Amino acid sequence: METTLTVLDKINTSRDLKSLSVEEMKILSGEIRELIMKKVNTTGGHLGPNLGIVEATIALHYVFNTPKDKLVFDVSHQCYPHKILTGRKEGFTDPDKYLKYTGYTAPEESEYDLFKIGHTSTSVSLAVGLAKARDLKGGKENVIALIGDGSLSGGEAFEGLDNAAVLGSNIIVIVNDNDMSIAENQGGLYANLKLLRDTNGQAECNFFKSLGFDYRYVADGNNVESLIETFKQVKDADHPVLVHICTLKGKGCKAAETDKEHYHWIIPGELDSSSVSNVSSGETYESIAVDYILEKHKKDNSVIAISPATPGVSGFTPEFRAKLGSSYTDVGIAEQHAVAYASGLAKGGAKPILAVMSSFIQRAYDQLSQDLALNNNPAVILVYWGGITGADATHLTKYDIPLIANIPNIVYLAPVNKEEYLRMLDWAVEQKEYSVVIRVPAMAVVSSGISDDTDYSVLNKYHVAENGSEVAILGLGNFFYLGEKVKNLLKEKTGISASLINPRFITGVDKELMESLKKNHKLVITLEDGVLEGGFGEKIASYFGSSDMKVLNFGAEKEFTDRVPLDELYARYHLTPELIVEDIQKCL
Amino acid sequence: METTLTVLDKINTSRDLKSLSVEEMKILSGEIRELIMKKVNTTGGHLGPNLGIVEATIALHYVFNTPKDKLVFDVSHQCYPHKILTGRKEGFTDPDKYLKYTGYTAPEESEYDLFKIGHTSTSVSLAVGLAKARDLKGGKENVIALIGDGSLSGGEAFEGLDNAAVLGSNIIVIVNDNDMSIAENQGGLYANLKLLRDTNGQAECNFFKSLGFDYRYVADGNNVESLIETFKQVKDADHPVLVHICTLKGKGCKAAETDKEHYHWIIPGELDSSSVSNVSSGETYESIAVDYILEKHKKDNSVIAISPATPGVSGFTPEFRAKLGSSYTDVGIAEQHAVAYASGLAKGGAKPILAVMSSFIQRAYDQLSQDLALNNNPAVILVYWGGITGADATHLTKYDIPLIANIPNIVYLAPVNKEEYLRMLDWAVEQKEYSVVIRVPAMAVVSSGISDDTDYSVLNKYHVAENGSEVAILGLGNFFYLGEKVKNLLKEKTGISASLINPRFITGVDKELMESLKKNHKLVITLEDGVLEGGFGEKIASYFGSSDMKVLNFGAEKEFTDRVPLDELYARYHLTPELIVEDIQKCL
Repeated sequence: METTLTVLDKINTSRDLKSLSVEEMKILSGEIRELIMKKVNTTGGHLGPNLGIVEATIALHYVFNTPKDKLVFDVSHQCYPHKILTGRKEGFTDPDKYLKYTGYTAPEESEYDLFKIGHTSTSVSLAVGLAKARDLKGGKENVIALIGDGSLSGGEAFEGLDNAAVLGSNIIVIVNDNDMSIAENQGGLYANLKLLRDTNGQAECNFFKSLGFDYRYVADGNNVESLIETFKQVKDADHPVLVHICTLKGKGCKAAETDKEHYHWIIPGELDSSSVSNVSSGETYESIAVDYILEKHKKDNSVIAISPATPGVSGFTPEFRAKLGSSYTDVGIAEQHAVAYASGLAKGGAKPILAVMSSFIQRAYDQLSQDLALNNNPAVILVYWGGITGADATHLTKYDIPLIANIPNIVYLAPVNKEEYLRMLDWAVEQKEYSVVIRVPAMAVVSSGISDDTDYSVLNKYHVAENGSEVAILGLGNFFYLGEKVKNLLKEKTGISASLINPRFITGVDKELMESLKKNHKLVITLEDGVLEGGFGEKIASYFGSSDMKVLNFGAEKEFTDRVPLDELYARYHLTPELIVEDIQKCL
Repeated sequence: METTLTVLDKINTSRDLKSLSVEEMKILSGEIRELIMKKVNTTGGHLGPNLGIVEATIALHYVFNTPKDKLVFDVSHQCYPHKILTGRKEGFTDPDKYLKYTGYTAPEESEYDLFKIGHTSTSVSLAVGLAKARDLKGGKENVIALIGDGSLSGGEAFEGLDNAAVLGSNIIVIVNDNDMSIAENQGGLYANLKLLRDTNGQAECNFFKSLGFDYRYVADGNNVESLIETFKQVKDADHPVLVHICTLKGKGCKAAETDKEHYHWIIPGELDSSSVSNVSSGETYESIAVDYILEKHKKDNSVIAISPATPGVSGFTPEFRAKLGSSYTDVGIAEQHAVAYASGLAKGGAKPILAVMSSFIQRAYDQLSQDLALNNNPAVILVYWGGITGADATHLTKYDIPLIANIPNIVYLAPVNKEEYLRMLDWAVEQKEYSVVIRVPAMAVVSSGISDDTDYSVLNKYHVAENGSEVAILGLGNFFYLGEKVKNLLKEKTGISASLINPRFITGVDKELMESLKKNHKLVITLEDGVLEGGFGEKIASYFGSSDMKVLNFGAEKEFTDRVPLDELYARYHLTPELIVEDIQKCL
């Protein structure tokens, strides 16, 4: 399909918008939507959020003088229209350049982008900083934060709003209310948004007014004229203003308008299929936990699953949620609450299982430490997708080991196969002594076929998979299988029969086993699917520091990588069997 | 002075309260206040918060059936009256037992205490967990969270309230509004609390109602009759209720009523002096930064100091704050916002300096990582009190190194004397390339007398204080001086002239220097005033893992310690020159 771009062809920077008529802006909206659908259906990406925000993006750039006026996107997964209008439309018109720009705002791409942001609830705080800097320097530009309703439930957003409201000068917060987080919105605030929608913004009981904002309401946030009119009214305001706009998530794409959760983010080709596929292609580590929880819940109503607004990450499908009924809580985007809530549930005698993506558990460090670990409450947390990936810099998942494993009391486990995972899960749920976190394998399911009957209450006991000599390979979690490959290649290249060890416990050193290795091993290598600094391997290196045992730690460097292909990262970090064996040979 | 305890003598558990008349409760309030003042003036501790909450604590235990009904204290530094009424009054009546109980709720002390809590803003989330567990198990008890207004600004509190409001069953949140955080309250929410006070709780624009709470107002929260009446009304409510009570912080102690900030927490004997002493006893690392900031600010208005409601930690006195005027921001208890705000300020061209206590910076890990480090914005963060201490388990300050030093891009510095500190501070403020965190020495000021002209933009370059051989001592920050002592004792005992190295950079390894050590050193020891796991020393151990160099890491174990004397901890962790030299001798 050849897309006709009657209006967009004329738009290269936001300045080009200024001369458009409203009619042309409407045409432009359609053109932008077509491009987004086509591109996202090719590369995968965020669909619903971007389709909903097209008119608001046009109106913002039309009314405000960006980039002098500063526009901060929350999460920034809704910045595609913004990118199209600010010099980067080739990333959407030219399939060869589909991957040229990130799916998030990126200062290195454009002066229109202020921050590299992919976690939610940050825009208001960042904007308050920009606005205060402006005031200190005597500037006059507008500072605008664009935040989706789903992001409002995150504590950082509240802290930002609370402070924005007393800034005493220009700051404009646009709340994009589409009545959706990634899944449905959760929390008391959303009833207030509904009340405001139902009263056309007139209800006196108003969350935003209660914080002190000058509040404005735009009933149809997909109507470019209404938006322009309101934005013009608030432009250059000398005080904090909040504009509540109601938009339709997924607008212009029937499927995305209907199933908002599913079409929040799609995989390539998903718009081509006529119906949403919910059929999973076999067993996954997600489905293993889902099946376990459902089974457990049949016998014990106090088993409760929790998600901080990302049920898709853990395979908590609408069906699963429905089956659990009141034993499922989506707390909204609120990881801090999720962890403290789990701690309270455990203290109260329930059996909470909180499912969080590695990249997002870092939003709750203090709660892991203070609310949970210090209290030793037996909540269970499942960390998903932990490992080195080629993801965007904002969604890296390699930091959970240093984050979690250095907190006292927490038992952080890394299973390597289905049987271990199930055993660990059940032990964690049934025991009453520890706060347990499990790093769910981020890989296809491996089954040993042998049921695991390990007693995990004997902490820090590693599993020796194969006894050997000279070299001991500690392959943690996902990287146990890399360890197997290293063992085989080492045998092939040097004749050495290495020991292969599955540590299982990330949070401690098996001192007895490590001591025993000294007898007939010269070198221990550690393999971990995460960042090295602060991680598992360094503990082993420290343990052997005063001995003659040599130690090589393999894992990722401490760096933010941005969409670097995994192969390239593995080569960079020496995470292939060939490179590891070479390093071993150099060391022996 | 012999305290007469007409009423308290009859009270051993909360049940004994049930038979008291209102008149007796008033007498009891006075008795409790006397005990608290006397005890706190002897041991030091939280004064104002406890004096304000006496009547509410009596009324809560009178109306509710604690411990069956569950009472969760936020921060819990206001739990002294609660402890007195729940079997622990000896900790207040008997000077020999003044230190028997912690200043925070502690489940190991009493079944009346649900959680060990010392950071703010957690109570509502924890209570939601308890309440949900009750619902799943078919219980009927009341769950009550008692949260101070100052704690409301923390994001976790908002996340908790937002979720509490939709619980659909019994949860009672008591907001203790004393119009104060530790310093003055900050943020838009507090204007709403004022509006509610001014309208006797009648204003329609009501933050709590906007979230969906059934809202009740008690104008005089130090009137035990009003409190009892209202608590009786909300007891056994089948839905979420919020009771807003207005109390006087410091009530019953004239000085504490007048200077609420100063008397929030006092040192022993402070009530004996007739006036508040603001005279500092000479130069401190706090005063060095304060003087630096004031001087810098005279020339550059964009230099801005930020505190998350703990200005006392960093010596940001009322005078200092007044001098900075609009170049000072107290963001309230809102560390997440504080870090993101600082990032925004730096992006906007200002020069933010955020001062945070080590124990509280952990409330902003994701913001350090995503809002700040990923964006490489040149904000400066000063971390105070970092190190091993004999503090309460809730306020340990030994985790900041693993927390911060494993985040990419951040430069975390550890000065060892005044000159280095000033140089690092000025470099950090003036440079534009890095997010810089400085671990402010937690010790008396040491001056080398020699101005430091190091270029800290050359990252990870350690300073060799003394060249030696055989053993190299890396003494980080506070522990540089321990390193000096070790060096001297080692010389004395073995004749070895060790090298003494001041790493200065926590966030990286000086590979060139480490390589050079291999020539004439056999052993490297690292000394860090913090937890070992995930810390500085492990990086050194990992670096030397494949070489013949031996490494010994000294620091704290990964454990929560609770008021363990520092000497005992130093002995436990081998952090005395004698024990370290012994370990060195064993290793050589």
